[in-house]
This record gives sequence, C-alpha cells and structure tokens, in this order.
Amino acid sequence: MVLNLVNWKLDFSSVFTPKNVAIIGVSPNFMKWGAIIAANIVIGGYKEKLFLVNPKHKRIYGIRSFPSIKDIRGIIDLVYVALPSTKIFNVLEECGEAGVKSCVIIAGGFSEIGHDGRDLEKEVIKIANNYKIQIIGPNTMGICNPHHKFYGLMPPINPIPGNIGFISQSGNLGTQLMSLGEMQGIGFSKFVSSGNEIMLRTEDYLEYLGQDPDTKVILCYIEGLRDGKKFLEVAKKITPHKPIIVYKAGKTAAGSKAAHSHTGSIAGSWVIIQSMFKQAGVIEASTSLELLDLAKAFSKLPPLKGKRIGILSWGGGWAVVCADHLMQVGLEVPPLSEVAIEDLNKILPPYWSKSNPIDLVGTLDRRNQLKSLKILSDSGMDGIVVLGVLTGLAFENLKKYQQIVNIPEEDLQVLIKEFEKTDMRFVKNIKKLVDIGKKPIVAVALSSEEVQEEYKKQIVIYSQPETAANVLSKMYQYYQNKLKKEKK
Amino acid sequence: MVLNLVNWKLDFSSVFTPKNVAIIGVSPNFMKWGAIIAANIVIGGYKEKLFLVNPKHKRIYGIRSFPSIKDIRGIIDLVYVALPSTKIFNVLEECGEAGVKSCVIIAGGFSEIGHDGRDLEKEVIKIANNYKIQIIGPNTMGICNPHHKFYGLMPPINPIPGNIGFISQSGNLGTQLMSLGEMQGIGFSKFVSSGNEIMLRTEDYLEYLGQDPDTKVILCYIEGLRDGKKFLEVAKKITPHKPIIVYKAGKTAAGSKAAHSHTGSIAGSWVIIQSMFKQAGVIEASTSLELLDLAKAFSKLPPLKGKRIGILSWGGGWAVVCADHLMQVGLEVPPLSEVAIEDLNKILPPYWSKSNPIDLVGTLDRRNQLKSLKILSDSGMDGIVVLGVLTGLAFENLKKYQQIVNIPEEDLQVLIKEFEKTDMRFVKNIKKLVDIGKKPIVAVALSSEEVQEEYKKQIVIYSQPETAANVLSKMYQYYQNKLKKEKK
Repeated sequence: MVLNLVNWKLDFSSVFTPKNVAIIGVSPNFMKWGAIIAANIVIGGYKEKLFLVNPKHKRIYGIRSFPSIKDIRGIIDLVYVALPSTKIFNVLEECGEAGVKSCVIIAGGFSEIGHDGRDLEKEVIKIANNYKIQIIGPNTMGICNPHHKFYGLMPPINPIPGNIGFISQSGNLGTQLMSLGEMQGIGFSKFVSSGNEIMLRTEDYLEYLGQDPDTKVILCYIEGLRDGKKFLEVAKKITPHKPIIVYKAGKTAAGSKAAHSHTGSIAGSWVIIQSMFKQAGVIEASTSLELLDLAKAFSKLPPLKGKRIGILSWGGGWAVVCADHLMQVGLEVPPLSEVAIEDLNKILPPYWSKSNPIDLVGTLDRRNQLKSLKILSDSGMDGIVVLGVLTGLAFENLKKYQQIVNIPEEDLQVLIKEFEKTDMRFVKNIKKLVDIGKKPIVAVALSSEEVQEEYKKQIVIYSQPETAANVLSKMYQYYQNKLKKEKK
Repeated sequence: MVLNLVNWKLDFSSVFTPKNVAIIGVSPNFMKWGAIIAANIVIGGYKEKLFLVNPKHKRIYGIRSFPSIKDIRGIIDLVYVALPSTKIFNVLEECGEAGVKSCVIIAGGFSEIGHDGRDLEKEVIKIANNYKIQIIGPNTMGICNPHHKFYGLMPPINPIPGNIGFISQSGNLGTQLMSLGEMQGIGFSKFVSSGNEIMLRTEDYLEYLGQDPDTKVILCYIEGLRDGKKFLEVAKKITPHKPIIVYKAGKTAAGSKAAHSHTGSIAGSWVIIQSMFKQAGVIEASTSLELLDLAKAFSKLPPLKGKRIGILSWGGGWAVVCADHLMQVGLEVPPLSEVAIEDLNKILPPYWSKSNPIDLVGTLDRRNQLKSLKILSDSGMDGIVVLGVLTGLAFENLKKYQQIVNIPEEDLQVLIKEFEKTDMRFVKNIKKLVDIGKKPIVAVALSSEEVQEEYKKQIVIYSQPETAANVLSKMYQYYQNKLKKEKK
C-alpha cells in the first residue's frame, strides 16, 4: 500500500529545531507517555517554549495547560499528540486550523494491526494533506536534537551532542542504542524514531541529514522502505561525502512478519535490497550493535586508505585472534619493516615476537609499550589495532596487594599513579598519532571497566578484537567505494 | 616437532588440588611475576602451605623463604618456577631431586622464539622425564581452582567457583575471559594456562576434565594441537556427556604465524581441524567472547531439544532483529497457538502483535509482562528469548522526574520499589520456568547496567539478541549431536 506523498516542500526545521513545542494529551497521571515526554523535554533543558494541552486542567506539573491547541497564541512548530489512535482526529483538525507545522503521533494501532488501522492511517493522511501538516510516525518514540537541547523522547535519555544523525524505524532500538552510545562517548546530531512513516519517511529524513552541516555520519535502522527508488537516488548522492550505515531488519520470513506487525512495513526481498545498498555505496552493519561500533569509527577517525594493519598487543592470544579476524575480513597483517624490528629490539625483551603482531609479552615496562606504539605507527601501516594496553581501573587491583606486600602506602600510591598516567599517555598518544598520521588507530579493552569514561570520548575503543577487525574492513570498503565514485 | 610424551601415569591432583605449593624466584621487588603470583595465592585464600624459595632472603612479605627447594621438608606437589628461561635448569634438577610432582614454568623464551628456544625446551623435557616431573607451560600464566581457593595466577583475578573447566593456550586471553565471566556470574571449576605445552597438553587436561566431577562444561582456547589424534579420541568420549566448546585461533596465514611466535604451536590446516571438531561433536565458538556466552548457557540451562523458539519483547525492533537471527542460524519462530493468542488478548492492549514474537508494545503494565511470559512458556515452544523486560537500574531514572513532577518522595519510592520488584519477579519466574519446564529461557538486556549483579548469577542474560540466537543454535546443535551418538 503506497500512500500519497506530500506534494509541498518539506520543512525539517520545525521537526529538528522547533521554535516551540506543544504536547496534546498530558495528564496529571504521571505514568502516561504524554507526561513523560513533557518531563523529558523540560529536564533535557529545552530553551524554547513548551505548551501543554488538556481541557480539564489549567496547570500540569507547574506548566500552563490550554484547553485546545487553538488557544495557544502564535504558530506551533512541533506538536506531540499523545492520545490513543482512535481519538486523534478532532485534535489533528484543530492542529490544522491552528497552522501547526509538524505533528508527532505517538500512538500505535495503525497499519501494523491490519485493515482497521490502515483506515485510520488514511484518515490521518487526508487531514494532514488538507492542512499541510508534516506527520512524524505514528507509532514513534519521538525526536531529539542534542545540539538544540531538545529531547522530545519517550525514554528518559539524553544523548550527548555529536556528528551522527540517526533514523530509526524502531523507537525502542534507536533510543536504547543512543543510550548505550552515551556510555561509549558517542554523540548525536539528530535522531528520529520514524515509526510507521505514513508521511515523512526514512528517504525524506535521509535527504535532510545528507545536507545537514551538523551531521557527518548517518545511521539507519530499516525494517522496510516505502520508496526504494528514492532511497537509492538520495543515498547515492550522499555516500561520496558522508557514510550511510544501515542495519536492515526483516531479512527472513519470521523477521519480515514481525516487522509488519511492528511498524506495518513491507520488508521487501532481502537480496534486492542488499544489492541496492551496494549500488548506493551504503555500509551494512551485520548486527544491531554494529551500528554503534561503525558510527563511532566513522565519526571519530580518518579514513582507512589501505589494507595493511599493524597490531600491538600486551598478550599473545588476543594478537592471534585479531590477526585471524583481520585476514578473514579481507585486510592484511604484513611483516614489520627491518627498521621497526631493530628499533623494537632495543626496547623489548629478547623473546618478543619480532614480527607483526607485536607481542609485548606481558612486559610490565609501560614506557616501552608507548615507545612500541610510536615505532609501529611510523612503520608504514595503513591502520593500527592496539590490544590490551589500557589497564584502566585494573591498577586499583594493586591496592589489594597491600595486605601481603610490605610496601608503604605512599609507594603504592606512586605505583598506582604511574599506571594511571601511562593510560592517559596512551590515550593522548593514540589521539595525537591519529591526528598527525591521518591513519585510524583503534584500541581494544576487553572490559569496559578497564577504561575511564573520558578516554572513551577521546579515542575509539572496542571490547573485542573481532569488532575492531570488522569495523576496519568496513572503513576500507567505504573508502574504496568513494574512490570508485570519484573516478567515474 | 613432536616431543616425547610422558610414559608414566599422569597425576592431576598435584596440578589442580595441590596439597602444598612453592614458588622459586620470588624477589622482594614486588613488580616481578614471582612475587605477584605469591601474593595472588595468599590473597585468594589458599588454605594449604605456601613456601617461597630465594637464597638471598630468609623472609619475603612475611613468608618464610628457603635457600633451595631441597631445604623444604616433605614432597612438594606444585612448584612455580618464576625465573628467566636460561636460568631454570639447576632449579629443575633440584626439583627433581626433591621429588617435586608438578612444575609450572612461567618464563617465555622457548620454542616460540626459534631454534635456541627449542633447544632449551628439549633440555627441560630431558630433566623432567628423568625425574618424572610434570611440566605445565612454559610460557604460562598459571593454574587456578576456585573450589580449592587456589589462585596460582599472574593476574590478580579470583574467578568464582562453578562448573566450567577451562584450558587456554593463551594465559592473557584465558584469564581475561574469566575476569569478564566473573562480572557475568559465570563460575569455573578448574583453569589452566597451558602455554607452550612441552609436556602436559590440551589433550591431557581435556582427558582429566572429562572425568572431573566438578566440571560440567569444558572450554578450550586452542592455537595448535600437538596430538590431534588423541584430541579426537578423548573429545569423542567426552562430548556425549559433557559439552566441549572450542575457540580455535590461527585459522589464517597471519593468525598461524602469530600463534607460532606466541606459543610455538603449529596451527595446522583449519579445514582439517574444523572437520575433526565436527567429528568429535565439539562446539565451535565463532568469536573469542562467544566462548563465555556459550559457557554460560551450557553451564546453567537445560538442553534445547527442538527448534521452536518463542520471543517476548518489550519493543518491536528488538523482536524483529531477534526473529531474523533465529531464522538465520537455522531455528524457527513458529506462530502462537490460538489458546495463547486468546489468553494474551485478555491482558495486552488491542494493538499487540497477535503473533510470535509477542510485542508488548511498550506497555508500562509490568504485571501483564509477567503473565505474558507465563502464557508463552506454556505454549509449546522448545526455548524462549525474553527481550528488554529487565529494566534494572533504569528505574533510578524515575528519580530525575522529581524536579518536574509534583509527586511526593514516598510515592516515587513506591513506584521505584515496584519496578525493582517486577525485575526480581521476572528473574524468579524465568528461573522457575526453566527449572519446571526443562526448557532454556534466555534474557536479553542491552546494557549491563540494566541488570543487577545477583540476577546475572540466577538466570542467563545476554546483551544482544544476536548472541541469544547464536547460543541457542549451538545448544540445539549439541543436543542433535548427542542424540545421533546415542542412536549409534
């Protein structure tokens, strides 16, 4: 079922940088979504005006409440309708009469539930077209723009500002990924939970984010595309200058069926969609969380221009695992230059690996770990993976030795400080080497507890060598696609 | 290079449940491995006798130190030799003369560094064979047995007691996985970092763990097998009653090369080894961390006897992702029975998915989430995945609403307690349903911060739906292998 597309020029400023916002359907019963969204907007620090609409109350949570949207003076950019699907029509008419520009319809119960729902959708479209209201959703968890301090979302999350734009056909998955991203120091420019997309679609948001100066990388969670042709056209234009990273759900019979009852989308043939992604130069995430892994790298690192990867590891096992996976994803782990081997011979124990991967064989001399990284970085590799050298909070473990080791508290403190400092130096050095060398360096720290929060913002850190390998291979793939397009 | 196998009966009690332990090469300089291992054994709470050997000191860290191993009265079960590779021969001779049963050689610098190292290894073998000393390593991080409170390891970790035996050819990888496992509530029976395996090999430890009553699941990290034939024979006997889960490193040219300079092992042809694993009924982990994911499930859950998987999800997106991955790994997401649909109709909002996956469409009524799980569990599925229903520490977020919502502190506390209680009920119910129904139920909570530590011990929780799908498919594979063998 293809619905009418809007035939007037879309205006995304009312969606992502609204000058004022109203919420229809906020009740004093706090455990309802309308109230929660209002609270999230206030707590998020939105600087513009927020109005509530509820005919039965004059104030809710200390905010003025109006009987109808029509009673609010001036034009409202963005209205959240937090009412059940069957109760939104009068309200939408009123929005139209009041000149509202964009409307977020929270409720589910539309095409994803079958015929009755589809009829409701058609009705919404009719009203929206009549009054030129842009509809976000229905069946959406909302919108946010961290740069604007606008968090119009159902879950109580506050992603940090950054350069990643994110379009998600699942609100739950999208907001949870952003919440995970926050812990990993990943910042977002714009987010929309696009829901059933009865009017504004992934393709439209994509076109907007493609030219949005705050957005450097675009993420999409897609269950189905209403207008595959437009997606292809739009994506083709964007990928040469901005990576688009997609996770496509609904690849199998069970997945498509679930997608249909989730957002009413038709998943389409996976083979056809995958070939379209390839044609458009879109990078595909193979798991849902890989969306974040890829976003982090593309958002923070220079391009990977060649296949040659150097590995520096504190322990041999991880180095083997990493070398294997780099090869398996089509990258290379070439031998070290003779110069590099000679330089490393001077500082590492005689039984070091003498090759790439550089196995630091558990040496506790952390200054030499740092020097080794510098040597590897100068050795002509296209990218580097650094494994296990961030000890992070592990140094706290030293404290427990005090019960057995007879060393004075102050000496122990010196030791702990030294470990802490070396981590900091590693992070600073990695950051510097990335900036100067224009080559990606990714770190792997198995446990997130090994790494202090601030470090995660400064460099790219993963918890598995396999992830580092996957991400580097897709960075290389993106760069190759880009080169090919430039040659054309 | 195949070295002589021991031709006397191996005795693993001196290795894993030593009655006394000595460490040769402990210096008062704490930042050396000998001292650190001594400290780890003491702090771990080892109840038997620990002796230190250092001719220059009478006491180190308050523990008596002997000039030589020969000066200690009685036979020593397990000796750690923490000296450089070139300095261990006299000491080994002395161990032999003192009747030491087993020796852990910490140092690297043997076959992994080439010819010179191989000569050293041959010398060690000669002495060990001469005196019938069992050699663990060299190039090892040690041994632990949490049931025995014996933590003879280089890193300061204390895995909790459990039913998983773990043989790792990488000390670093093995101990770090155990440390991660601790945070996930995964307990171990025995662990050995087998290192270069110049005498005791993966095959030998495997044979021992196969008959060890404390071990229910066996994990192996393997870079190369010295005696593939023995591995096959031993594994074949074990897998019908205990799952063996293997991660094989050194699959590619770069990986094999790295493995060789790591532990001196010859990785062997990956195709041949993989077919051997299949023949032996060994379950292969496809990433290093999947070793833990699989260990957790096999250690805590009843077998998955069929392909039919039911999904219960708070949000639709995760349900779609999960359904896709279950299908992609060869499992099924069959329709719900009519009875189950009718029962769910009574408690869920009218726009719920009416199918498997059951999408709870974000309903905040958590009692009905619980009831839905019960209904799904009774609906004839072989296994269940529960997504996103453990809100865990997320309820703490409610506190931040206080600045906007005018509800009294005590009401908020009631609300938070209610969330907390529902999580607890979910965990209890899942545990109960697993015990009664004899079917595996796995939960997925995207962020580990969503889940309280104690819950991780009680039920099986993963952070991605993809992981849940992979693990279930391998559980099914194991059960099928077992059935086939039983029929023979």
